[in-house]
Amino acid sequence: MSDIAPPAPPIEITGDRILLLDQTLLPAEERWIEIESVEQMWDAIKILRIRGAPAIGIAAAYGMVIASRGATAASRDEFLADLETARSYLASSRPTAVNLFWALNRVMKAVEQTESDSVHVLRRVVRKEADDIYREDVEAGRKIGEFGAELLGAGGSVLTHCNAGGIATSGYGTALAPMYILNERGEQIHVFVDETRPLLQGSRLTAWELDRAGIDATLITDSMAASVLASGKVKAVIVGSDRVAANGDVANKIGTLGVAMLAHGFDIPFYVAIPVSTIDFEIETGADIPIEERQRDEIASINNVALTPDRVAVYNPAFDVTPARYVTAFITEHGIIKPPFKENLGRLQNLSV
Amino acid sequence: MSDIAPPAPPIEITGDRILLLDQTLLPAEERWIEIESVEQMWDAIKILRIRGAPAIGIAAAYGMVIASRGATAASRDEFLADLETARSYLASSRPTAVNLFWALNRVMKAVEQTESDSVHVLRRVVRKEADDIYREDVEAGRKIGEFGAELLGAGGSVLTHCNAGGIATSGYGTALAPMYILNERGEQIHVFVDETRPLLQGSRLTAWELDRAGIDATLITDSMAASVLASGKVKAVIVGSDRVAANGDVANKIGTLGVAMLAHGFDIPFYVAIPVSTIDFEIETGADIPIEERQRDEIASINNVALTPDRVAVYNPAFDVTPARYVTAFITEHGIIKPPFKENLGRLQNLSV
Repeated sequence: MSDIAPPAPPIEITGDRILLLDQTLLPAEERWIEIESVEQMWDAIKILRIRGAPAIGIAAAYGMVIASRGATAASRDEFLADLETARSYLASSRPTAVNLFWALNRVMKAVEQTESDSVHVLRRVVRKEADDIYREDVEAGRKIGEFGAELLGAGGSVLTHCNAGGIATSGYGTALAPMYILNERGEQIHVFVDETRPLLQGSRLTAWELDRAGIDATLITDSMAASVLASGKVKAVIVGSDRVAANGDVANKIGTLGVAMLAHGFDIPFYVAIPVSTIDFEIETGADIPIEERQRDEIASINNVALTPDRVAVYNPAFDVTPARYVTAFITEHGIIKPPFKENLGRLQNLSV
Repeated sequence: MSDIAPPAPPIEITGDRILLLDQTLLPAEERWIEIESVEQMWDAIKILRIRGAPAIGIAAAYGMVIASRGATAASRDEFLADLETARSYLASSRPTAVNLFWALNRVMKAVEQTESDSVHVLRRVVRKEADDIYREDVEAGRKIGEFGAELLGAGGSVLTHCNAGGIATSGYGTALAPMYILNERGEQIHVFVDETRPLLQGSRLTAWELDRAGIDATLITDSMAASVLASGKVKAVIVGSDRVAANGDVANKIGTLGVAMLAHGFDIPFYVAIPVSTIDFEIETGADIPIEERQRDEIASINNVALTPDRVAVYNPAFDVTPARYVTAFITEHGIIKPPFKENLGRLQNLSV
């Protein structure tokens, strides 16, 4: 999809075949699955075979490609109606990542703006838009990596939470992109990886990606972040985001708020790496970002072994919201964005498609 | 050992039999094991069949009882030498909990101060001292519960980390003692329970204890504490401790420092519930408390399934140190201790045996 070959892409497009790396099986097994129906794509997003805001956006766009192929529509109107059905279905897979809605709307808009009655032509528009979304994300990831590498510099340690790596995007990642660029340049960097309960994206995915790339990493439990930050060994915390409000409030994997407040307490910079497509300019503050609640089992059991009595209640929000005041800067494909965020993020609005 | 029957004792003494609840099997199985040798007791402490600072102290004291029984000494000097061997062996089981050393030294001192050449008499002194340590801990737990219940009041929610419950002590717990007292009085209280990675003492032990007592609890991952504290639903955080320095710095289960700093950030009181025996007056600040590091496997795998690639490094400190400035007050068997801690904790020194 792009001239650049990113280090860890979770989606592979070969001709008409759409393959996803099944991230629920990592790190034990690296299995690629072919997605052939819109339902299969919905399911892959829902159960986190593919996850990470930018990757969900790309996957959803290719879900639209599959829908456009299957459409038996004879007319433009029927084709648009079929696509709209797929759009609204795919949008129901997960509620928090804005890239999902952004990508789906972008595909719809591209088709609507194409003045053609040929279903064949419209199908090609859907595919081209999905390919563009994919390619642009690779380029954005590389840019984020370059700006981030400049900001962080080589040497020392950073701490990250969850997986905002290659496999959460088109292959470079957001929070991990600077590490890939530093590594490519032969520079040293060490990453403390929060394991990220309950689904362990840190130990299963981030540690796997960094190990695969030969980047030095140390795995810790989420509860050890305070102790590691207190040790003075960490020069910066860097995370991704599922949705950033217009004022700079950041929705990201549960636990991010805690890490941000601790970094603040220890005077360590806290960076959020995102493509501009993660900013939701229609939402003023983080209070308006819907937070997905997930099932009891993710916390109450592991490998089908109960960790707690059956009657014990569980609360399992998948995300939290970090107020903008804890964010030192955003690292985007258009550069480093510092406060005041409402104003400075606002300037990016017209750069986004 | 006491006239009071505490709600969740992990040690049962019946005549000469010493039984421990095997906490590594909870919550799936409630199995009591009989301890018949000093090596078995060392092992039970080392691999956490029994854990929690006060419970370790009691268990170690009964380890001395077993050693005194097995001693083939013909003279007072030989008996003291045998006991000293057992003391130093049991002291090597775990490095952080001061109650371990405190209880072992207390037993040794009681024997040394007994002016008798009868091995039989000296054996009875060992047993009496162990029984006293047990009984006094029950009474201290109940007192901590009463002072804590007064301080917290009924209604609302508290948040706790790890297990400073009945089974971490002689049966009332330290951090959970106020909940047991409120519950006994028919008052309502709700507890948010951090699961406490890596060993999940929150989900496996605290949730189990509270459920068993009919106390309302909600289990969360450690990474959700920030989000729960941000919600405004928590009126206080309450934890136990493995060792408190003379200045009020608190060593406790890894993750406590993070919770304390978050409580501070949200202006929520952070209480540490301890018997006076947990204060190490010989250590000036937390910087001098030795922190146990445990094995890679506790984080890198679960039920023998690898969670991360084999080559990934792991850092696994079992405890962290919370600076005294984040502690609102200590809840002890002698009342609520407020800052300045060096002075106010110091007043308790002479009350401790």
